[in-house]
Amino acid sequence: MRTTPTTHTTPTHTTLRSRDEEIVIGADRPFCVIGERINPTGRPAFAERLRAGDLSRVESDVKEQVAGGAMMLDVNMGVPLADEAELLARAVRLIQDRTRLPLCLDSSVIEALEAGLAAYEGKALVNSVTAEDDRLERILPLVKRYGAAVVGLPNDADEIPAEPRRRLELARKIVDTAGGYGIPPEDVLIDPLAMPVGADTSLVRTTLDTIALIHDELGVNMTLGASNVSFGMPERHAIGAAFLPMAMAHGLTSAIMDARAPRLVQSAKAADLLLGNDPWGGAWIAAFRAGRP
Amino acid sequence: MRTTPTTHTTPTHTTLRSRDEEIVIGADRPFCVIGERINPTGRPAFAERLRAGDLSRVESDVKEQVAGGAMMLDVNMGVPLADEAELLARAVRLIQDRTRLPLCLDSSVIEALEAGLAAYEGKALVNSVTAEDDRLERILPLVKRYGAAVVGLPNDADEIPAEPRRRLELARKIVDTAGGYGIPPEDVLIDPLAMPVGADTSLVRTTLDTIALIHDELGVNMTLGASNVSFGMPERHAIGAAFLPMAMAHGLTSAIMDARAPRLVQSAKAADLLLGNDPWGGAWIAAFRAGRP
Repeated sequence: MRTTPTTHTTPTHTTLRSRDEEIVIGADRPFCVIGERINPTGRPAFAERLRAGDLSRVESDVKEQVAGGAMMLDVNMGVPLADEAELLARAVRLIQDRTRLPLCLDSSVIEALEAGLAAYEGKALVNSVTAEDDRLERILPLVKRYGAAVVGLPNDADEIPAEPRRRLELARKIVDTAGGYGIPPEDVLIDPLAMPVGADTSLVRTTLDTIALIHDELGVNMTLGASNVSFGMPERHAIGAAFLPMAMAHGLTSAIMDARAPRLVQSAKAADLLLGNDPWGGAWIAAFRAGRP
Repeated sequence: MRTTPTTHTTPTHTTLRSRDEEIVIGADRPFCVIGERINPTGRPAFAERLRAGDLSRVESDVKEQVAGGAMMLDVNMGVPLADEAELLARAVRLIQDRTRLPLCLDSSVIEALEAGLAAYEGKALVNSVTAEDDRLERILPLVKRYGAAVVGLPNDADEIPAEPRRRLELARKIVDTAGGYGIPPEDVLIDPLAMPVGADTSLVRTTLDTIALIHDELGVNMTLGASNVSFGMPERHAIGAAFLPMAMAHGLTSAIMDARAPRLVQSAKAADLLLGNDPWGGAWIAAFRAGRP
């Protein structure tokens, strides 16, 4: 919990691009809301459609998340027994025809990431690589070849470290290894690993301490799966709406989250205002006038 | 913003009492929600009634705040041209007949504080003393004589310091001076001074940095007027609901706030859960089952 104010250095800026729009992630920018919805996990009907090659539901997912305030969209086509590479490439093209938001290509299958990157027009965010050597060796060259940015998870085959300092070490390994492939630190976002508070109520402090350490010692941008925190608990949006401002005040610069939930998006916007990333409160007041969350 | 995790020391505990109930404030306890409502500031009809000696409205204020989740109640009878001492003493007796919650006696008039303390049964919180010598010399002996605790504001006649380190110095002066009167550090709550974000969007970071410094270097409990932060802005509860978790993650242990606002109270409860101060999530789940915020 403890916080010691230190001198603020120049914030790192990560730029992502679609065909014709770019977004900059950084500690002095509005928090980057990445919509999590285009993902078959926990959506059996959607998974079934995808398995049948039917991407029609993706269109309304795009629309709802854009309306909710998403600034990027995560795209995951991980359906068992389906051709994930082909699905991801098709989804990328379809989504880029529907929205100008940059995309985050989300897969653990390297062939799918490659197909998605080949189909993508712009500078994508690859989600994700771990600190395992064989994953780093296979994914980082792809990230470099396609001029993308990448999310790094500070865990390896042995462990998801419980200690923030061990997470920092693995994060540093990812950033350093990426550097060796010609990927600069600003193109690596570290995921400080958000765990369900319902499993162990001490885990959120671990995540907050990890965010602070990575902010202080690596200075890179970060993203995480915010919905993990409230997994299994009632009133999930109320928990998420309290978690985001805390994490942002510790240095979190983006999250993959439910961009359709007004309370969550509004909490991120309120935290932008409170942290001085909404000059004169202009965005806050404009949203209120427009009746948006 | 920067946070460096340090070893956690034993949290300081501040105990307040009514006739027959006590509450403990501390970093390892649920956040102490102090209801702000019994205060004529910005309530002209209420002020008019008080001036006429009519305290009937106080009863519904008590009821609403207790129902909302208040754990203490602030009582302010500062009506111009009224006998504040007599009003505060009457209000204290009336409120203690209606609720078991401990009270926070809120006045800048020393005679009113004395009358309120004389009427109060239990251990009250006196709100407040500044770092000005003449205020310290007059208020601290009262606090000691009545066995109360006190809120210290780190400002003096010259300034409300813009620098967190200067606020820390003045806070230390208050804690040290209180010690000289026999008041232990656990009976001094420092107010890190929350300012309206609408006036200057950098002011909240100053408050957060002050909270962290006071937590790290003085280790005392803290309270602040949370509604100040959103003053003059639209969607005040959404701003407050983002501010509280941030401030709590930095070390704030209580706030004087709108305890009737479900969104605010729920954000404090969610932050308790996330910070490990709601073991097993028991309070969160019980509130959900009971249909409470």
